[in-house]
Amino acid sequence: MKLLEERIRKDGTIRGTEVLKVDRFLNHQMDIGLINEIGKEFKRLYGDCGVNKILTIEASGIGIACITAQFFNVPVIFAKKNKTKNIAGDVYTSKVESFTHGKVYDIIVSKEFLGPEDRVLLIDDFLANGSALQGLINLVRDAGATLVGAGICVEKAFQPGGDLIRSMGVRVESLARVKSMDEATNSIEFCE
Amino acid sequence: MKLLEERIRKDGTIRGTEVLKVDRFLNHQMDIGLINEIGKEFKRLYGDCGVNKILTIEASGIGIACITAQFFNVPVIFAKKNKTKNIAGDVYTSKVESFTHGKVYDIIVSKEFLGPEDRVLLIDDFLANGSALQGLINLVRDAGATLVGAGICVEKAFQPGGDLIRSMGVRVESLARVKSMDEATNSIEFCE
Repeated sequence: MKLLEERIRKDGTIRGTEVLKVDRFLNHQMDIGLINEIGKEFKRLYGDCGVNKILTIEASGIGIACITAQFFNVPVIFAKKNKTKNIAGDVYTSKVESFTHGKVYDIIVSKEFLGPEDRVLLIDDFLANGSALQGLINLVRDAGATLVGAGICVEKAFQPGGDLIRSMGVRVESLARVKSMDEATNSIEFCE
Repeated sequence: MKLLEERIRKDGTIRGTEVLKVDRFLNHQMDIGLINEIGKEFKRLYGDCGVNKILTIEASGIGIACITAQFFNVPVIFAKKNKTKNIAGDVYTSKVESFTHGKVYDIIVSKEFLGPEDRVLLIDDFLANGSALQGLINLVRDAGATLVGAGICVEKAFQPGGDLIRSMGVRVESLARVKSMDEATNSIEFCE
Protein backbone atom coordinates (compact mmCIF):
# COMPACT_ATOMS: atom_id res chain seq x y z
CA MET A 1 0.00 0.00 0.00
CA LYS A 2 1.85 3.02 -1.33
CA LEU A 3 0.14 5.49 1.02
CA LEU A 4 1.40 3.63 4.09
CA GLU A 5 4.90 3.10 2.67
CA GLU A 6 5.18 6.80 1.89
CA ARG A 7 4.00 7.72 5.35
CA ILE A 8 6.56 5.38 6.92
CA ARG A 9 9.30 7.02 4.84
CA LYS A 10 8.10 10.48 5.87
CA ASP A 11 7.22 10.03 9.55
CA GLY A 12 8.69 6.70 10.64
CA THR A 13 11.84 6.61 12.74
CA ILE A 14 14.47 3.91 12.27
CA ARG A 15 16.54 2.79 15.26
CA GLY A 16 19.50 0.60 14.34
CA THR A 17 18.52 -1.98 11.71
CA GLU A 18 15.57 -3.61 13.50
CA VAL A 19 13.39 -1.06 15.30
CA LEU A 20 10.89 1.01 13.33
CA LYS A 21 8.88 3.57 15.27
CA VAL A 22 5.56 4.57 13.74
CA ASP A 23 4.20 6.29 16.81
CA ARG A 24 3.54 9.55 14.99
CA PHE A 25 0.67 8.07 13.00
CA LEU A 26 -0.11 4.47 13.90
CA ASN A 27 0.46 3.30 17.47
CA HIS A 28 0.69 6.23 19.87
CA GLN A 29 -0.65 9.19 17.92
CA MET A 30 -3.12 7.77 15.39
CA ASP A 31 -3.90 9.42 12.05
CA ILE A 32 -7.52 8.41 11.66
CA GLY A 33 -7.67 9.39 7.98
CA LEU A 34 -4.75 7.08 7.21
CA ILE A 35 -6.25 4.28 9.28
CA ASN A 36 -9.51 4.72 7.41
CA GLU A 37 -7.62 4.05 4.16
CA ILE A 38 -5.99 1.02 5.81
CA GLY A 39 -9.43 -0.27 6.77
CA LYS A 40 -10.66 0.16 3.19
CA GLU A 41 -7.68 -1.81 1.91
CA PHE A 42 -8.35 -4.69 4.32
CA LYS A 43 -11.95 -4.66 3.10
CA ARG A 44 -10.74 -4.84 -0.51
CA LEU A 45 -8.50 -7.80 0.36
CA TYR A 46 -10.88 -9.77 2.59
CA GLY A 47 -14.30 -8.41 1.62
CA ASP A 48 -15.45 -11.63 -0.08
CA CYS A 49 -14.41 -14.01 2.70
CA GLY A 50 -17.55 -13.99 4.85
CA VAL A 51 -15.78 -12.40 7.83
CA ASN A 52 -18.18 -12.03 10.78
CA LYS A 53 -15.71 -11.15 13.59
CA ILE A 54 -12.50 -9.17 13.75
CA LEU A 55 -10.05 -10.25 16.44
CA THR A 56 -7.11 -8.16 17.61
CA ILE A 57 -4.93 -7.80 20.68
CA GLU A 58 -4.62 -4.86 23.02
CA ALA A 59 -3.51 -2.19 22.79
CA SER A 60 -2.23 -0.89 19.43
CA GLY A 61 -4.40 -3.15 17.31
CA ILE A 62 -7.72 -1.99 18.75
CA GLY A 63 -8.13 1.32 16.94
CA ILE A 64 -7.13 -0.15 13.59
CA ALA A 65 -9.49 -3.08 14.12
CA CYS A 66 -12.41 -0.79 15.05
CA ILE A 67 -11.98 1.46 12.02
CA THR A 68 -11.60 -1.61 9.78
CA ALA A 69 -14.70 -3.22 11.29
CA GLN A 70 -16.84 -0.34 10.04
CA PHE A 71 -16.19 -1.51 6.48
CA PHE A 72 -17.10 -5.12 7.31
CA ASN A 73 -20.04 -4.23 9.55
CA VAL A 74 -18.92 -6.79 12.15
CA PRO A 75 -17.98 -6.62 15.84
CA VAL A 76 -14.41 -6.41 17.11
CA ILE A 77 -13.06 -8.58 19.89
CA PHE A 78 -9.79 -7.67 21.49
CA ALA A 79 -7.73 -10.26 23.33
CA LYS A 80 -6.74 -8.96 26.75
CA LYS A 81 -3.25 -9.20 28.14
CA ASN A 82 -4.11 -9.44 31.81
CA LYS A 83 -6.83 -11.32 33.56
CA THR A 84 -8.88 -8.75 35.42
CA LYS A 85 -11.49 -9.03 38.12
CA ASN A 86 -14.13 -8.13 35.57
CA ILE A 87 -13.56 -11.10 33.27
CA ALA A 88 -15.07 -14.04 35.05
CA GLY A 89 -15.77 -17.49 33.78
CA ASP A 90 -14.52 -19.40 30.80
CA VAL A 91 -11.81 -17.95 28.61
CA TYR A 92 -9.57 -19.15 25.83
CA THR A 93 -5.95 -18.45 26.69
CA SER A 94 -2.65 -18.43 24.85
CA LYS A 95 0.90 -17.27 25.52
CA VAL A 96 2.61 -14.42 23.68
CA GLU A 97 6.25 -13.36 23.82
CA SER A 98 6.65 -9.62 23.36
CA PHE A 99 9.57 -8.50 21.23
CA THR A 100 9.06 -4.90 22.36
CA HIS A 101 8.74 -5.53 26.08
CA GLY A 102 10.98 -8.59 26.37
CA LYS A 103 8.56 -10.75 28.36
CA VAL A 104 5.98 -13.53 28.06
CA TYR A 105 2.35 -12.91 28.95
CA ASP A 106 -1.03 -14.57 28.67
CA ILE A 107 -3.74 -13.33 26.35
CA ILE A 108 -7.37 -14.24 26.86
CA VAL A 109 -10.71 -14.07 25.08
CA SER A 110 -14.03 -14.93 26.72
CA LYS A 111 -15.48 -18.12 25.26
CA GLU A 112 -18.78 -16.30 24.92
CA PHE A 113 -17.44 -14.27 21.99
CA LEU A 114 -15.78 -16.87 19.75
CA GLY A 115 -17.16 -20.18 18.54
CA PRO A 116 -17.35 -22.66 15.65
CA GLU A 117 -19.81 -20.45 13.74
CA ASP A 118 -17.32 -17.60 13.45
CA ARG A 119 -15.18 -16.60 10.46
CA VAL A 120 -12.41 -14.50 11.93
CA LEU A 121 -10.12 -11.86 10.45
CA LEU A 122 -7.10 -11.02 12.61
CA ILE A 123 -5.88 -7.40 12.59
CA ASP A 124 -2.69 -6.01 14.11
CA ASP A 125 -0.36 -3.08 13.62
CA PHE A 126 2.94 -5.00 13.44
CA LEU A 127 4.22 -8.42 12.45
CA ALA A 128 7.80 -9.14 13.46
CA ASN A 129 8.51 -12.43 15.19
CA GLY A 130 4.91 -13.47 14.87
CA SER A 131 4.32 -14.33 18.50
CA ALA A 132 1.25 -12.10 18.96
CA LEU A 133 -0.29 -13.38 15.72
CA GLN A 134 0.46 -16.97 16.70
CA GLY A 135 -1.26 -16.35 20.02
CA LEU A 136 -4.37 -15.02 18.26
CA ILE A 137 -4.36 -17.98 15.85
CA ASN A 138 -4.27 -20.35 18.82
CA LEU A 139 -7.33 -18.63 20.32
CA VAL A 140 -9.25 -18.95 17.04
CA ARG A 141 -8.36 -22.65 16.76
CA ASP A 142 -9.24 -23.35 20.39
CA ALA A 143 -12.64 -21.79 19.70
CA GLY A 144 -13.17 -24.05 16.69
CA ALA A 145 -13.68 -20.93 14.57
CA THR A 146 -12.57 -20.52 10.96
CA LEU A 147 -9.49 -18.38 10.46
CA VAL A 148 -9.95 -16.30 7.32
CA GLY A 149 -6.54 -14.64 7.53
CA ALA A 150 -4.59 -11.78 9.02
CA GLY A 151 -4.42 -8.11 8.04
CA ILE A 152 -1.19 -6.47 9.18
CA CYS A 153 -0.19 -2.84 8.73
CA VAL A 154 3.59 -3.15 8.90
CA GLU A 155 5.52 -6.41 8.50
CA LYS A 156 9.22 -6.54 9.23
CA ALA A 157 9.86 -9.08 6.50
CA PHE A 158 13.48 -9.57 7.60
CA GLN A 159 12.20 -11.13 10.81
CA PRO A 160 10.77 -14.66 10.79
CA GLY A 161 7.12 -14.10 11.80
CA GLY A 162 5.58 -13.61 8.36
CA ASP A 163 7.24 -16.65 6.78
CA LEU A 164 6.44 -18.76 9.81
CA ILE A 165 2.74 -17.92 9.84
CA ARG A 166 2.38 -18.26 6.05
CA SER A 167 4.13 -21.67 6.17
CA MET A 168 1.27 -22.80 8.44
CA GLY A 169 -1.11 -22.14 5.55
CA VAL A 170 -2.51 -18.92 7.01
CA ARG A 171 -3.22 -16.07 4.60
CA VAL A 172 -1.31 -12.98 5.74
CA GLU A 173 -1.76 -9.63 3.98
CA SER A 174 0.69 -6.95 5.09
CA LEU A 175 0.16 -3.46 3.72
CA ALA A 176 3.81 -2.45 4.06
CA ARG A 177 6.56 -5.08 4.11
CA VAL A 178 9.93 -3.76 5.22
CA LYS A 179 12.75 -5.66 3.50
CA SER A 180 15.56 -3.85 5.27
CA MET A 181 16.32 -0.58 7.02
CA ASP A 182 19.30 1.18 8.50
CA GLU A 183 19.43 4.15 10.85
CA ALA A 184 23.03 4.92 9.81
CA THR A 185 21.99 5.71 6.24
CA ASN A 186 18.38 6.62 7.17
CA SER A 187 17.26 4.17 4.49
CA ILE A 188 14.34 1.81 4.30
CA GLU A 189 13.52 -0.67 1.55
CA PHE A 190 10.13 -2.30 1.07
CA CYS A 191 9.41 -5.68 -0.55
CA GLU A 192 7.89 -5.51 -4.02
CA MET B 1 -28.13 8.50 25.88
CA LYS B 2 -31.12 6.17 25.77
CA LEU B 3 -29.54 3.77 23.26
CA LEU B 4 -26.61 3.07 25.59
CA GLU B 5 -28.79 2.80 28.70
CA GLU B 6 -31.03 0.32 26.94
CA ARG B 7 -28.06 -1.71 25.81
CA ILE B 8 -26.67 -1.79 29.35
CA ARG B 9 -30.05 -3.05 30.61
CA LYS B 10 -30.14 -5.71 27.89
CA ASP B 11 -26.53 -6.93 27.74
CA GLY B 12 -24.76 -5.57 30.81
CA THR B 13 -24.03 -7.87 33.73
CA ILE B 14 -24.24 -6.65 37.32
CA ARG B 15 -21.95 -8.17 39.95
CA GLY B 16 -22.85 -7.25 43.51
CA THR B 17 -23.71 -3.56 43.77
CA GLU B 18 -20.53 -2.05 42.28
CA VAL B 19 -19.28 -4.03 39.26
CA LEU B 20 -20.94 -3.56 35.88
CA LYS B 21 -19.63 -5.69 33.03
CA VAL B 22 -20.20 -4.31 29.55
CA ASP B 23 -17.82 -6.66 27.78
CA ARG B 24 -20.48 -7.91 25.36
CA PHE B 25 -20.60 -4.60 23.51
CA LEU B 26 -18.11 -2.05 24.80
CA ASN B 27 -14.80 -3.23 26.21
CA HIS B 28 -14.02 -6.77 25.12
CA GLN B 29 -16.39 -7.45 22.27
CA MET B 30 -17.14 -4.08 20.66
CA ASP B 31 -20.38 -3.28 18.83
CA ILE B 32 -19.07 -0.86 16.24
CA GLY B 33 -22.55 0.37 15.26
CA LEU B 34 -23.27 1.33 18.87
CA ILE B 35 -19.87 2.97 19.25
CA ASN B 36 -20.53 4.93 16.06
CA GLU B 37 -23.67 6.37 17.71
CA ILE B 38 -21.60 7.14 20.81
CA GLY B 39 -19.08 9.00 18.66
CA LYS B 40 -21.88 11.01 17.06
CA GLU B 41 -23.19 11.97 20.48
CA PHE B 42 -19.76 13.17 21.64
CA LYS B 43 -19.59 15.22 18.45
CA ARG B 44 -22.99 16.74 19.23
CA LEU B 45 -21.83 17.63 22.75
CA TYR B 46 -18.32 18.91 21.94
CA GLY B 47 -18.54 19.77 18.25
CA ASP B 48 -18.29 23.54 18.78
CA CYS B 49 -15.32 23.48 21.15
CA GLY B 50 -12.45 23.61 18.68
CA VAL B 51 -11.15 20.15 19.64
CA ASN B 52 -7.98 19.30 17.70
CA LYS B 53 -6.78 16.18 19.59
CA ILE B 54 -8.53 13.32 21.31
CA LEU B 55 -6.65 11.76 24.21
CA THR B 56 -7.50 8.39 25.73
CA ILE B 57 -5.78 5.64 27.69
CA GLU B 58 -5.06 2.09 26.65
CA ALA B 59 -6.71 -0.25 26.18
CA SER B 60 -10.51 -0.01 26.29
CA GLY B 61 -10.67 3.68 25.41
CA ILE B 62 -8.79 3.38 22.13
CA GLY B 63 -11.51 2.00 19.89
CA ILE B 64 -14.12 4.44 21.20
CA ALA B 65 -11.69 7.33 20.75
CA CYS B 66 -10.83 6.29 17.17
CA ILE B 67 -14.46 5.99 16.08
CA THR B 68 -15.25 9.31 17.77
CA ALA B 69 -12.27 11.00 16.13
CA GLN B 70 -13.77 10.32 12.71
CA PHE B 71 -16.55 12.79 13.52
CA PHE B 72 -14.09 15.46 14.70
CA ASN B 73 -11.52 14.80 11.95
CA VAL B 74 -8.67 14.94 14.48
CA PRO B 75 -5.92 12.52 15.54
CA VAL B 76 -6.14 10.26 18.58
CA ILE B 77 -3.35 9.92 21.11
CA PHE B 78 -3.48 7.08 23.57
CA ALA B 79 -1.56 7.25 26.83
CA LYS B 80 0.49 4.10 27.31
CA LYS B 81 0.57 2.15 30.53
CA ASN B 82 4.07 0.77 30.28
CA LYS B 83 7.26 2.40 29.12
CA THR B 84 8.48 0.32 26.19
CA LYS B 85 11.79 0.17 24.38
CA ASN B 86 10.16 1.89 21.44
CA ILE B 87 9.22 5.08 23.26
CA ALA B 88 12.42 6.99 23.69
CA GLY B 89 12.98 10.55 24.76
CA ASP B 90 10.79 13.02 26.53
CA VAL B 91 7.42 11.97 27.85
CA TYR B 92 4.76 13.41 30.12
CA THR B 93 3.98 10.98 32.90
CA SER B 94 1.29 10.57 35.53
CA LYS B 95 0.19 7.92 38.01
CA VAL B 96 -3.10 6.04 37.80
CA GLU B 97 -4.63 3.71 40.37
CA SER B 98 -6.66 0.96 38.74
CA PHE B 99 -9.92 0.07 40.43
CA THR B 100 -10.24 -3.03 38.26
CA HIS B 101 -6.72 -4.36 38.66
CA GLY B 102 -6.01 -3.09 42.17
CA LYS B 103 -2.62 -1.53 41.42
CA VAL B 104 -0.88 1.74 40.62
CA TYR B 105 0.87 2.28 37.30
CA ASP B 106 2.44 5.04 35.25
CA ILE B 107 0.88 6.40 32.09
CA ILE B 108 2.92 8.29 29.53
CA VAL B 109 2.48 10.42 26.43
CA SER B 110 5.35 11.57 24.21
CA LYS B 111 5.87 15.31 24.52
CA GLU B 112 5.97 15.45 20.72
CA PHE B 113 2.22 14.88 20.54
CA LEU B 114 0.79 17.34 23.09
CA GLY B 115 1.56 21.02 23.50
CA PRO B 116 0.15 24.47 24.36
CA GLU B 117 -1.52 24.78 20.95
CA ASP B 118 -3.75 21.76 21.57
CA ARG B 119 -7.41 21.71 22.58
CA VAL B 120 -7.96 18.24 23.99
CA LEU B 121 -11.05 16.09 24.42
CA LEU B 122 -10.60 13.12 26.75
CA ILE B 123 -12.47 9.92 25.91
CA ASP B 124 -12.83 6.80 28.04
CA ASP B 125 -15.22 3.90 28.46
CA PHE B 126 -15.72 4.12 32.25
CA LEU B 127 -15.61 6.68 35.01
CA ALA B 128 -15.69 5.27 38.53
CA ASN B 129 -13.13 6.56 41.00
CA GLY B 130 -11.76 8.97 38.44
CA SER B 131 -8.12 7.98 38.72
CA ALA B 132 -7.59 7.30 35.00
CA LEU B 133 -9.30 10.55 34.06
CA GLN B 134 -7.29 12.46 36.66
CA GLY B 135 -4.12 10.97 35.17
CA LEU B 136 -5.10 12.12 31.69
CA ILE B 137 -5.97 15.60 33.00
CA ASN B 138 -2.50 15.81 34.58
CA LEU B 139 -0.89 14.96 31.23
CA VAL B 140 -2.90 17.68 29.46
CA ARG B 141 -1.96 20.27 32.10
CA ASP B 142 1.71 19.27 32.06
CA ALA B 143 1.66 19.81 28.30
CA GLY B 144 0.18 23.30 28.73
CA ALA B 145 -2.69 22.24 26.48
CA THR B 146 -6.31 23.36 26.87
CA LEU B 147 -8.64 20.77 28.34
CA VAL B 148 -12.00 20.99 26.57
CA GLY B 149 -13.65 18.25 28.62
CA ALA B 150 -14.19 14.54 28.95
CA GLY B 151 -16.55 12.21 27.10
CA ILE B 152 -17.35 9.10 29.10
CA CYS B 153 -19.53 6.18 28.03
CA VAL B 154 -20.54 4.81 31.43
CA GLU B 155 -20.23 6.70 34.71
CA LYS B 156 -20.82 4.93 37.98
CA ALA B 157 -22.33 8.01 39.59
CA PHE B 158 -22.44 6.35 43.02
CA GLN B 159 -18.64 6.37 43.04
CA PRO B 160 -16.75 9.62 43.66
CA GLY B 161 -14.87 10.15 40.36
CA GLY B 162 -17.47 12.18 38.48
CA ASP B 163 -18.16 14.63 41.32
CA LEU B 164 -14.46 14.97 42.03
CA ILE B 165 -13.51 15.81 38.45
CA ARG B 166 -16.47 18.17 37.95
CA SER B 167 -15.59 19.97 41.21
CA MET B 168 -12.24 20.81 39.59
CA GLY B 169 -14.15 22.77 36.95
CA VAL B 170 -13.73 20.14 34.22
CA ARG B 171 -16.69 19.51 31.91
CA VAL B 172 -17.61 15.83 32.05
CA GLU B 173 -20.29 14.41 29.77
CA SER B 174 -21.26 10.82 30.56
CA LEU B 175 -23.65 9.11 28.17
CA ALA B 176 -25.02 6.70 30.78
CA ARG B 177 -24.85 7.54 34.49
CA VAL B 178 -25.58 4.62 36.78
CA LYS B 179 -27.24 5.81 39.99
CA SER B 180 -27.42 2.39 41.61
CA MET B 181 -27.52 -1.28 40.73
CA ASP B 182 -27.98 -4.58 42.48
CA GLU B 183 -27.23 -8.09 41.30
CA ALA B 184 -29.64 -9.57 43.86
CA THR B 185 -32.64 -7.90 42.22
CA ASN B 186 -30.99 -7.62 38.78
CA SER B 187 -31.90 -3.92 38.83
CA ILE B 188 -30.11 -0.88 37.55
CA GLU B 189 -31.16 2.74 37.87
CA PHE B 190 -29.77 5.60 35.80
CA CYS B 191 -29.54 9.27 36.80
CA GLU B 192 -32.07 11.57 35.12
